[in-house]
Amino acid sequence: MIVNGKHYRTIREKPGTKLSVEIIDQRLLPFEFTTATLSEPADFLFAIKEMQVRGAPLIGVTAAYGMYCAAVGAPADSFDKYINSFANELINTRPTAINLSWAVNKSLEEMEKFDSRVDKIMSLLSTARNIAEEDVDTCKTIGFHGGKLIKEISDKKNGSTVNILTHCNAGWLATVDYGTAIAPIYNAFDSGVDIHVWVDETRPRNQGARLTAWELGSHGIPNTIIVDNAGGYLMQNGMVDIVIVGSDRTTINGYVVNKIGTYLKALAARDNNIPFYVALPISTFDFSVDNINEVLIEQRNEDEVLFTEGFYEGKSIVARTSAFNAKAANYAFDITPPELVTGLITEKGMIKPERDNIKLIIDR
Amino acid sequence: MIVNGKHYRTIREKPGTKLSVEIIDQRLLPFEFTTATLSEPADFLFAIKEMQVRGAPLIGVTAAYGMYCAAVGAPADSFDKYINSFANELINTRPTAINLSWAVNKSLEEMEKFDSRVDKIMSLLSTARNIAEEDVDTCKTIGFHGGKLIKEISDKKNGSTVNILTHCNAGWLATVDYGTAIAPIYNAFDSGVDIHVWVDETRPRNQGARLTAWELGSHGIPNTIIVDNAGGYLMQNGMVDIVIVGSDRTTINGYVVNKIGTYLKALAARDNNIPFYVALPISTFDFSVDNINEVLIEQRNEDEVLFTEGFYEGKSIVARTSAFNAKAANYAFDITPPELVTGLITEKGMIKPERDNIKLIIDR
Repeated sequence: MIVNGKHYRTIREKPGTKLSVEIIDQRLLPFEFTTATLSEPADFLFAIKEMQVRGAPLIGVTAAYGMYCAAVGAPADSFDKYINSFANELINTRPTAINLSWAVNKSLEEMEKFDSRVDKIMSLLSTARNIAEEDVDTCKTIGFHGGKLIKEISDKKNGSTVNILTHCNAGWLATVDYGTAIAPIYNAFDSGVDIHVWVDETRPRNQGARLTAWELGSHGIPNTIIVDNAGGYLMQNGMVDIVIVGSDRTTINGYVVNKIGTYLKALAARDNNIPFYVALPISTFDFSVDNINEVLIEQRNEDEVLFTEGFYEGKSIVARTSAFNAKAANYAFDITPPELVTGLITEKGMIKPERDNIKLIIDR
Repeated sequence: MIVNGKHYRTIREKPGTKLSVEIIDQRLLPFEFTTATLSEPADFLFAIKEMQVRGAPLIGVTAAYGMYCAAVGAPADSFDKYINSFANELINTRPTAINLSWAVNKSLEEMEKFDSRVDKIMSLLSTARNIAEEDVDTCKTIGFHGGKLIKEISDKKNGSTVNILTHCNAGWLATVDYGTAIAPIYNAFDSGVDIHVWVDETRPRNQGARLTAWELGSHGIPNTIIVDNAGGYLMQNGMVDIVIVGSDRTTINGYVVNKIGTYLKALAARDNNIPFYVALPISTFDFSVDNINEVLIEQRNEDEVLFTEGFYEGKSIVARTSAFNAKAANYAFDITPPELVTGLITEKGMIKPERDNIKLIIDR
């Protein structure tokens, strides 16, 4: 999307005698917008481990390009051994990231279809390009389907501003371009619909206040940050027309696992008859879980709650924002039941959050 | 309540040849616990204006003591003029604080029943003492009625831990002692009930993470800070037995105006069949409002959302915690409708949030 008047993706090829990739160093956002060039294997390991790149789809694409760059420099006499060992190193940088191991294994699988070293190297490049382009297509299509919803609301309101509430960051920064929950917002805005976005701050890591506000602002989309406490008040007072959030995992029965706090917004939406949509790629559906109680919710370090990252006297710092000696609990996600979800926006169109519907559309 | 093993009130008389009062300088909490002595009129003006003291009841008591201390030093030949002028100065330090003008006017009213200067001065002292003691009694009685509820839950659970969720700070720091929403918690804990408190961080000003966690921790009550997003998840998972919050204003029809985010917790409590109580003194009822839509919700400075106060390298600082150039909206309160409220805990006992019931109990 647009930053300083220029179109960016979160990752792009940088041509040269030796191909490298350019990423946005997301650790510094929103306080500094800097790109970094990855060319050596160690650059890719660092970028993923130290979270220069974040968001499941983007991590996968970065890893796939890393496989290619490593192959280019691999010793001819121990090529396969070298690549397999690097693949393991990549996966171990963030062992719980599903898309990371998926992309690395996909790269290896495709590569093994070829015999010569050159063909293998070219296969790794085309796999990386395919994963990146598929992600862009998926997000763009989600944007198309979700954008229609926003346009319908705009028409009903005779073109007056459509107010959209979103939680966390499911924007282009987590993907290659467009994002998931934010894709419909970009689609509607770029087609000239008058919109305004309420951005939930999203404690404890403030992805809304930091990333979503930054990406919407950079693209020129009117937006206002609110504390996570405020959404209910806005909905009670007719200041929200539609809620769109992303999802980290959605079960085949339509239970939506997403950033902690999503469930509270879904409750408020129902209480005030406001449509509540979840935007997600088909790859986010989890077919392995039948009983929602089996889903384990990750507990993260309490310091994310007790301290807050901010910008002070020209640099990023971490300040204590709670009483000394206090303890905290830090559940990362919550589960929104299907009866609170108006619809699931996917690249295959809109899906009602019911088992039969989900199966039907996915198998199509 | 207890701090470092010693009993404190937020304000207490400090005997001496000339009476002064000692307060806790709440600006420095929770990072520093320091008391300050107020004896000269200027000390009282400063303490209220600069928020060394905060919370409606405490501000009122501080002002009443200020009236007395000013009277002691007032010139004999223009005593009444001096006192009336100081009363005005006091009221203007925080013109929207209802309890401030109420306490000052009450002090003047009582004083005017006497003729001699000495009687007037003694009247001001006894008014200050009365307001303070009445506040303590009110809070203690709210604690007694609410404590019974917690004990009943404990009995039903065969004495296993009762988990209580609270929002913002309605504790002793906002009153003279005990607090309102926290009074039942102190009552239950001091009678030996096994309890644990989930403390909502309460963005944007973090009164939960800063003040409630500090006062509960100082008194030895087990508590855990959570982000405001987390309460719904805890309720879905059987980790909350009762919710108790305070109120800034409650209408005669039972609509509860309280810190932004209260409504979201009330929705989650209903969705999970968890009792949701509001603890408040009778003085918090607003008889002037019949139509809830007439209640104006204060909008505060957006910087409270865009920046966060914290402790960094040995001092209190304010750091930017949102994207540069971002805008924010900052609604201070929301309104919880009576159908989400299980009961109102007052010093006159439990009240169902219905007009007839509220009128009946208040008039009693």
